Amino acid sequence: MKYCFGVDIGGTTVKMGLFEKTGEILDKWEIVTRREDEGKAVLPDVAASVAEKIQEHHLKEADIIGIGVGVPAPVTEDGVVKASANIGWGYKEVKKELEELTGFSVEVGNDANVAALGEMWKGGGEGNSNIVMVTLGTGVGGGVIVGGKVIIGTQGAGGEIGHMCVNYEEVEVCGCGNRGCLEQYASATGIVRLARRKLAQDKRETVLKAENVTAKDVFDAVKAGDCVAQEIAEEFGKYLGYCLANIAAITDPAVIVIGGGVSKAGEVLLPYIQTPFLERALFTNKGVEFRLAKLGNDAGICGAAKLILDEYSS
Amino acid sequence: MKYCFGVDIGGTTVKMGLFEKTGEILDKWEIVTRREDEGKAVLPDVAASVAEKIQEHHLKEADIIGIGVGVPAPVTEDGVVKASANIGWGYKEVKKELEELTGFSVEVGNDANVAALGEMWKGGGEGNSNIVMVTLGTGVGGGVIVGGKVIIGTQGAGGEIGHMCVNYEEVEVCGCGNRGCLEQYASATGIVRLARRKLAQDKRETVLKAENVTAKDVFDAVKAGDCVAQEIAEEFGKYLGYCLANIAAITDPAVIVIGGGVSKAGEVLLPYIQTPFLERALFTNKGVEFRLAKLGNDAGICGAAKLILDEYSS
Repeated sequence: MKYCFGVDIGGTTVKMGLFEKTGEILDKWEIVTRREDEGKAVLPDVAASVAEKIQEHHLKEADIIGIGVGVPAPVTEDGVVKASANIGWGYKEVKKELEELTGFSVEVGNDANVAALGEMWKGGGEGNSNIVMVTLGTGVGGGVIVGGKVIIGTQGAGGEIGHMCVNYEEVEVCGCGNRGCLEQYASATGIVRLARRKLAQDKRETVLKAENVTAKDVFDAVKAGDCVAQEIAEEFGKYLGYCLANIAAITDPAVIVIGGGVSKAGEVLLPYIQTPFLERALFTNKGVEFRLAKLGNDAGICGAAKLILDEYSS
Repeated sequence: MKYCFGVDIGGTTVKMGLFEKTGEILDKWEIVTRREDEGKAVLPDVAASVAEKIQEHHLKEADIIGIGVGVPAPVTEDGVVKASANIGWGYKEVKKELEELTGFSVEVGNDANVAALGEMWKGGGEGNSNIVMVTLGTGVGGGVIVGGKVIIGTQGAGGEIGHMCVNYEEVEVCGCGNRGCLEQYASATGIVRLARRKLAQDKRETVLKAENVTAKDVFDAVKAGDCVAQEIAEEFGKYLGYCLANIAAITDPAVIVIGGGVSKAGEVLLPYIQTPFLERALFTNKGVEFRLAKLGNDAGICGAAKLILDEYSS
């Protein structure tokens, strides 16, 4: 049997998994992300943890295919990161450094792209090689997969779905510096923004309160039949569904997978996205399936494992 | 020396080329597209023309790598067309049929996608493997290339740039049945529409006349310094540039190539597209280069040749 490691480096913890080549997870664990000193300990910590687990599981080094890694930053095809604020890194040759530290083959990708690969492999997109994955969290991330391969792009910045402009009239500024980005409406914070705007002008009765309203509150209220909440969900879904219709015109996916914290609202979410999608999708794309992500926090380590397995088999 | 054929099937003529493996065009010619009887003669005519040219150039069959074909319809990865109104075809297994007719390997792609591949190989996108090509003709076509491969999509409908929605307020209907498609503003007919709307309400002096105005008239007037024409070009460029910024967020291209009849206006076109693009592009995409297509009518046969050469070398 051959094995590989999937590593998902985040700003607080590094999630790690030991996989069989077939995809079965044998072990998973976390280590702390030591961001101090420009995060210089992060890769050595990963290398040490890999070495430990090899011992613990009595594996032979010759049976290790390699290590796949997801990083919260654009990553070029040769595994270089220009900067990652979340980890404290400046320019870093992640692939090269980790290969030197471990002696194993390493493949590196952007974390959202890698999570999409995980969902394609073992999650909501299973069985399809053309998927769009949207991660609705604090921000909106994404991964677009075409013919089984993530769109990486010239600088590793492919799949930046959250920064497609969906409203040219927006006056508030997005974190990226532009105005009207999808992230301003479809992230957890975006939904709160929509809710606050709505609650400030809508005088109907609602269980929602403008102070401290969360995306979860909105979808809980939706489920309880609250009309005001349903209209907030409709607005959210319109921005997201229209944007996905435009993405579908370019990549003609079989499945669109909705993940991230917001997707914990469950199946109730999907019609709010699919209805406006169908309103705007090109006729060839009307059959696209909408599914919820399945892997939760494991999407990153699974996709990272898939990244190195694909490299090995190619 | 090894050779291949590039075939670009259109509604009126089939353009054909004989290529050396290195990409040099040895011969190019056209035959008539016989659309009658559901276009059943089209592929046999192509096969006969290929056989003739092999004789004429005294080639050995063993030296023919194969035939690449572009078709004006969505084409699945296995070379199947569901229907092509332009040629009169219903469901057609183009790859299989032409392989049986000729005995050579055949690869088939959508014509706009294939033209993009041609421009990547030997035209405006030369030297880059991540490009977006937009063809501004009667309609707006496109091809999006990622890592040297065209995005084909689940049903062969990838790269339908012309049917991305760029104006949710539009009331007129596009040929596809939706409203606000890029094609309604950036095609030759779209520019005429913009010009007519503008001329109906703008009372300033202009060389443009609402009756019979063409896209060429608009850009000729732009070059002559006509303010009204320049504002029409600005509107055209805004829709196109904003749309390209959204595409760039997904595919992170190195180069955007502008082709098709409208692009004959020349370099004057590019700033009208690039300025709004830069206004809306994600910071990672500000460095994208804008270039004019170079191959004109040869893009199709070149891309078709590249399609079969790529298959051969993979």
